[in-house]
Amino acid sequence: MRTVWLAASLCSIAFTASAQTARPEPGPLTIARQGSFFVGGREVKSETLSTLPAYAASGTITVDQMYVRYQVPAGTPGVPVTLIHGCCLTGKTWETTPDGRMGWDEYFVRKGHPTYVIDQVWRGRSAADPSAINAVRSGKAAVDKLPTVFAAGHEGAWEIFRFGKAYPQTMPGMRYPLAAQAEFWKQMVPDSINSLPTPNPTVPALSELAQKIGGTVLMSHSQSGIYPFQTAALNRKGIAGIVSIEPAACPAPTDDLKPYANLPILVLFGDYVDQFPRWAPRLANCRAFVAAANAAGGKAEIVVLPEIGIMGNTHMLMQDDNSLDIADLLIAWIGKHVAKAE
Amino acid sequence: MRTVWLAASLCSIAFTASAQTARPEPGPLTIARQGSFFVGGREVKSETLSTLPAYAASGTITVDQMYVRYQVPAGTPGVPVTLIHGCCLTGKTWETTPDGRMGWDEYFVRKGHPTYVIDQVWRGRSAADPSAINAVRSGKAAVDKLPTVFAAGHEGAWEIFRFGKAYPQTMPGMRYPLAAQAEFWKQMVPDSINSLPTPNPTVPALSELAQKIGGTVLMSHSQSGIYPFQTAALNRKGIAGIVSIEPAACPAPTDDLKPYANLPILVLFGDYVDQFPRWAPRLANCRAFVAAANAAGGKAEIVVLPEIGIMGNTHMLMQDDNSLDIADLLIAWIGKHVAKAE
Repeated sequence: MRTVWLAASLCSIAFTASAQTARPEPGPLTIARQGSFFVGGREVKSETLSTLPAYAASGTITVDQMYVRYQVPAGTPGVPVTLIHGCCLTGKTWETTPDGRMGWDEYFVRKGHPTYVIDQVWRGRSAADPSAINAVRSGKAAVDKLPTVFAAGHEGAWEIFRFGKAYPQTMPGMRYPLAAQAEFWKQMVPDSINSLPTPNPTVPALSELAQKIGGTVLMSHSQSGIYPFQTAALNRKGIAGIVSIEPAACPAPTDDLKPYANLPILVLFGDYVDQFPRWAPRLANCRAFVAAANAAGGKAEIVVLPEIGIMGNTHMLMQDDNSLDIADLLIAWIGKHVAKAE
Repeated sequence: MRTVWLAASLCSIAFTASAQTARPEPGPLTIARQGSFFVGGREVKSETLSTLPAYAASGTITVDQMYVRYQVPAGTPGVPVTLIHGCCLTGKTWETTPDGRMGWDEYFVRKGHPTYVIDQVWRGRSAADPSAINAVRSGKAAVDKLPTVFAAGHEGAWEIFRFGKAYPQTMPGMRYPLAAQAEFWKQMVPDSINSLPTPNPTVPALSELAQKIGGTVLMSHSQSGIYPFQTAALNRKGIAGIVSIEPAACPAPTDDLKPYANLPILVLFGDYVDQFPRWAPRLANCRAFVAAANAAGGKAEIVVLPEIGIMGNTHMLMQDDNSLDIADLLIAWIGKHVAKAE
């Protein structure tokens, strides 16, 4: 069976990474090029841009664009990777960890992968539209027209990220660098996703980005876990593979699975999943999706880290104390399963 | 007179840059280290973090932190530079220009300067607090408690940025790459500055950053023009110099000018300033400040680009078609006037 074989191949890669690997101080990094740009976006005419005399209330703004920052390493580049953050966070997720270790954004570059980091639309450097707030403030709209925007508090996020079952308890052997938690909480931003249409405009923007790059692994996390699948359903062009890390949702096994035929897909979960009512059903659904996708000719795989001997990883595994070991696993998987565009 | 002498010295540097310099394709860039982190921030307890059942309304969040991304070039580094964006924008201001040329964030690194790019508090990757919006939405607060958050529309920004006197007219010889204006509008984000205390929490965060770096030029733009001065008034520690680009405000000439004694200060304006009622008084006030600061033992200088033979620069001169020539001017000024911390 394909799934079993793939899991076994990853297991052999993973074996040496089951303990945290010591990392020497990294040397200088040579990059061929870097920069930032936007994809997507649409113009909106508004009469409520401002309630201040210094700025006109009436005018046109651009929203729904997605900010992208990238680095391409010197030398023959490997498969490009696009890092897509989750709920209540920005692209900062993948950068320097709260305790000051190298982020995946740099590590993938050092391993030869051109790396693209995005801010989901309406978050971070991707603009939101304040018109609804100002419409209510100036009496032109009712209070229920205010946007739905929430922040996850430290206490609630604690359980969502599986640091522990309730703040401030911790799971045994848990690998998140909690000594630096104050720096982590600074990464969290308000989330407007519930004010956005479905699919989220981030999805067509990811499709545009994938086509612009000309072949990339879409690597998502949590809230964004479903986006690469939605992007593939929209258009397979430019999508070289999907790595979905701790997705809040996989496609349903009863969905149309043709968009994923022959597409290398890896779904990755950390530890303690079955002990959390929020997470256990998500893992179960992803297992069912992977089985159904493979039955329909897919190349999907699901890895739950403790099942291959790696213990203690939280939902924020790209920041856990063995984050680069996890990255090594993914790099090995990409090297083995994802073809580079010619 | 000191001011005249300094301006004359800059003029000789500037002369060769008065026409746009051809730039060869840049080669690879080697950096010693890079990353991102936050400075500042405070915990806020709130009962209105969310109106959604999936996220608790009650909890603690962290706000007022300032996001910082940096690159340190390989080799013996020059004076570190901190780039501080203006109104309705984020750190993206200094990155790849809308028409795809190299941004100052990379150019300063290539010229040997460790470079730090920030997002002002409550903007970009620096979190805002959604509590007030949710308090109103859930009926716990009156509508007038909504935050003051505005967006500058394309049409209004057109005149503020001095592309032309009214949208879509352009100033003669204007150097902004308007063919790529759609990409520029995507950089603009809602601005919550009017909901923040004075001084803006960005100011103490800049002080913390300057001390952490251990000596940096604070280079501000427009809305943030006053911040480096406010930071110096708070604490001179870590501030090696100030470059204030097109500041919305300089300190008043009648202010206490002791915080600026012996501090290398350059105030820089582009073209067409006196033709815009929004801008002419700001330039006049900055001229008066520089004169007063020097009379009080300062090392301040003001340069208005057309007065040294460089025509056509807009308010967004870090993105104009001669942006790297302007950067060269600033790099020469820093090299001449700012001492590196030992």
